[in-house]
Amino acid sequence: MGVTAARGFRAVGLAAGIKSSSAPDLALVVNDGPSRAAAAVFTSNRVKAAPVLWSEQVVKAGELDAVILNSGGANACTGPEGFQDTHRTAEQTAAALETSATRVAVCSTGLIGVRLPMDRLLGALPAAVAALSAEGGADAAEAIRTTDTHAKTAVVERAGYVLGGMAKGAGMLAPGLATMLCVLTTDAQVPQAELDAALRTATARTFDRVDSDGCMSTNDTVILMASGATGVEPDAREFAAAVEELCADLARQLIADAEGASKEIEIEVVGAATEADGLEVARSIARNNLLKCAFYGEDPNWGRVLAAVGTTGAKFEPDQLSVAINGVWVCRNGGVGEDRELCDLSDRHIHLVVDLSAGGESVTVWTNDLTKDYVHENSAYSS
Amino acid sequence: MGVTAARGFRAVGLAAGIKSSSAPDLALVVNDGPSRAAAAVFTSNRVKAAPVLWSEQVVKAGELDAVILNSGGANACTGPEGFQDTHRTAEQTAAALETSATRVAVCSTGLIGVRLPMDRLLGALPAAVAALSAEGGADAAEAIRTTDTHAKTAVVERAGYVLGGMAKGAGMLAPGLATMLCVLTTDAQVPQAELDAALRTATARTFDRVDSDGCMSTNDTVILMASGATGVEPDAREFAAAVEELCADLARQLIADAEGASKEIEIEVVGAATEADGLEVARSIARNNLLKCAFYGEDPNWGRVLAAVGTTGAKFEPDQLSVAINGVWVCRNGGVGEDRELCDLSDRHIHLVVDLSAGGESVTVWTNDLTKDYVHENSAYSS
Repeated sequence: MGVTAARGFRAVGLAAGIKSSSAPDLALVVNDGPSRAAAAVFTSNRVKAAPVLWSEQVVKAGELDAVILNSGGANACTGPEGFQDTHRTAEQTAAALETSATRVAVCSTGLIGVRLPMDRLLGALPAAVAALSAEGGADAAEAIRTTDTHAKTAVVERAGYVLGGMAKGAGMLAPGLATMLCVLTTDAQVPQAELDAALRTATARTFDRVDSDGCMSTNDTVILMASGATGVEPDAREFAAAVEELCADLARQLIADAEGASKEIEIEVVGAATEADGLEVARSIARNNLLKCAFYGEDPNWGRVLAAVGTTGAKFEPDQLSVAINGVWVCRNGGVGEDRELCDLSDRHIHLVVDLSAGGESVTVWTNDLTKDYVHENSAYSS
Repeated sequence: MGVTAARGFRAVGLAAGIKSSSAPDLALVVNDGPSRAAAAVFTSNRVKAAPVLWSEQVVKAGELDAVILNSGGANACTGPEGFQDTHRTAEQTAAALETSATRVAVCSTGLIGVRLPMDRLLGALPAAVAALSAEGGADAAEAIRTTDTHAKTAVVERAGYVLGGMAKGAGMLAPGLATMLCVLTTDAQVPQAELDAALRTATARTFDRVDSDGCMSTNDTVILMASGATGVEPDAREFAAAVEELCADLARQLIADAEGASKEIEIEVVGAATEADGLEVARSIARNNLLKCAFYGEDPNWGRVLAAVGTTGAKFEPDQLSVAINGVWVCRNGGVGEDRELCDLSDRHIHLVVDLSAGGESVTVWTNDLTKDYVHENSAYSS
């Protein structure tokens, strides 16, 4: 159900003809209230797509009536004309919903540097609005897919209220934030400031700790909307935890479906002096192509782990670094530890632990292996 | 000829049995003087192999009689025992050459985290010393190969003196410095301080601007030795330029032989406000896996270039970025430029120009594409 698992929301997904494949490519999520509180986070890439520039502005007022999303084109690096396309999309969506364009966020995903076929996109809007439904979450999630092998939705239930979400993303997954398009909904009654704080904390700990290929998108957007349809006013901490649970679920789904991946790699850095140190080390490891190739080959090549750690500025002494791969401490105190032949890397999940022996902080980052299929998917056609 | 192109040097390369393949794996380069001036630069990785820790110490005195190098094992992350192995290697080499261990640098390359078979390495030393020859440069270059498909040597001639060099490296090529083992020689008479300055400047502009896969080795070493055998005392600027020419030649050979590469990509950043800005942008592009896959597929995917530029802190405005691929300005002022179909990417060499429109500085970094063969080479066996 995804975004329509929460009451007060309708959604739709259909094929507008933006993709040449005739696959679904247009989604709309509408908040019927009574609350229209909304918060959002966007890519930190300085080259931002037109829909990001637009949505950053409109969400500042703290309320949204709807989000219109398309796959089949990122509308990034398309100049003033591309921004006009986004503006017209918001205006015509707003007109069909009898609201104002400044209450409509826009998200796009697909190839950079190509204008959207606006006649098709706008032409499909009346049918989209007519088909909006409280059961439309699954169709909406389907319509935002690009190289995703399946749609991603999640639901978290709490006493008296529900959170739902959908996300797309399989490549260009790197922190900054948020590495994909994602719409989250809840039927709880939550003040905008609380929505905003919960979303920022949750995304920093989930989507921002997924690093598939080190590449940051120009279009990343995560939007959280509250309808208040249940009238339930949750405890702020409980609500924040629920948002984080929802984001963590979707983040794991993204990394599990990362382009060409055959392994999901959980990088746990322990003994860090600070959280920032732990993150720097974990990300350096997550971006080491050589290590990612080794894991693809089921080779417990811990030397590549230490080489990656050594490029960071984190606090550690080289002769106090230890590394465990799937529970086997193959490196102890900077040198050879247990027999690497003991490592069993046949499972899809690989658990890497790096002990910096420099403090009490721990950080986990998720990545995946680097495979021939990744190269194929990103070289065989433009995406 | 490589290192023995310069007079006053003898070298040798042979199979000591360190590699299981019986390929050559031990090299020795000896400076017969009269000068023994030497300078060196090493990896900036904080996890340093035992031979790097050793050689950093001995080169501080500014003179070296010899460099002993092995492939077949990096002797990195091998603890105090690994350092003892390096120490014994220097001692026994020195004994055979009737000098002191503190005048012998040691270089190793191969798998991290494995002790060297010291009996074989030391057992081969007498034969190596006996076979030293003024024609041994080619054999020495052969003996330091790992995944290199061929040996790399270079020679630069100036009025009255010569510089020669050899290098190995095909993976873990990233700045910091120097991304491989490299021994450079000259028969000019050059003060140590001048050698040191010339080497640091040259490596910063050559080896440090080669970035194959963003991965930094634990063993990188570049050593420059001057025999003074010609008695020629060159002009300092002319000599520095000659060292840079030699390094540039070897650096290009490294990137041309990078693991699995099918394209050599010259990334030229122009219009940068500072050299540091240009370097940051060029390196961000060089490390973008998605772009490197696109070039493998001969796809002029300039959107991935802008996405990489956008992750940097360099001075630029997104709507003033322009990108040319093989002479076609596919992106102008942040938007669509000339038709991308005009790009011909069939040649092995790809020339990418990114204009930041923010100043007058230019920087060039070399990288290569990301291919299925790269993944294969780095996953199919431990290296």
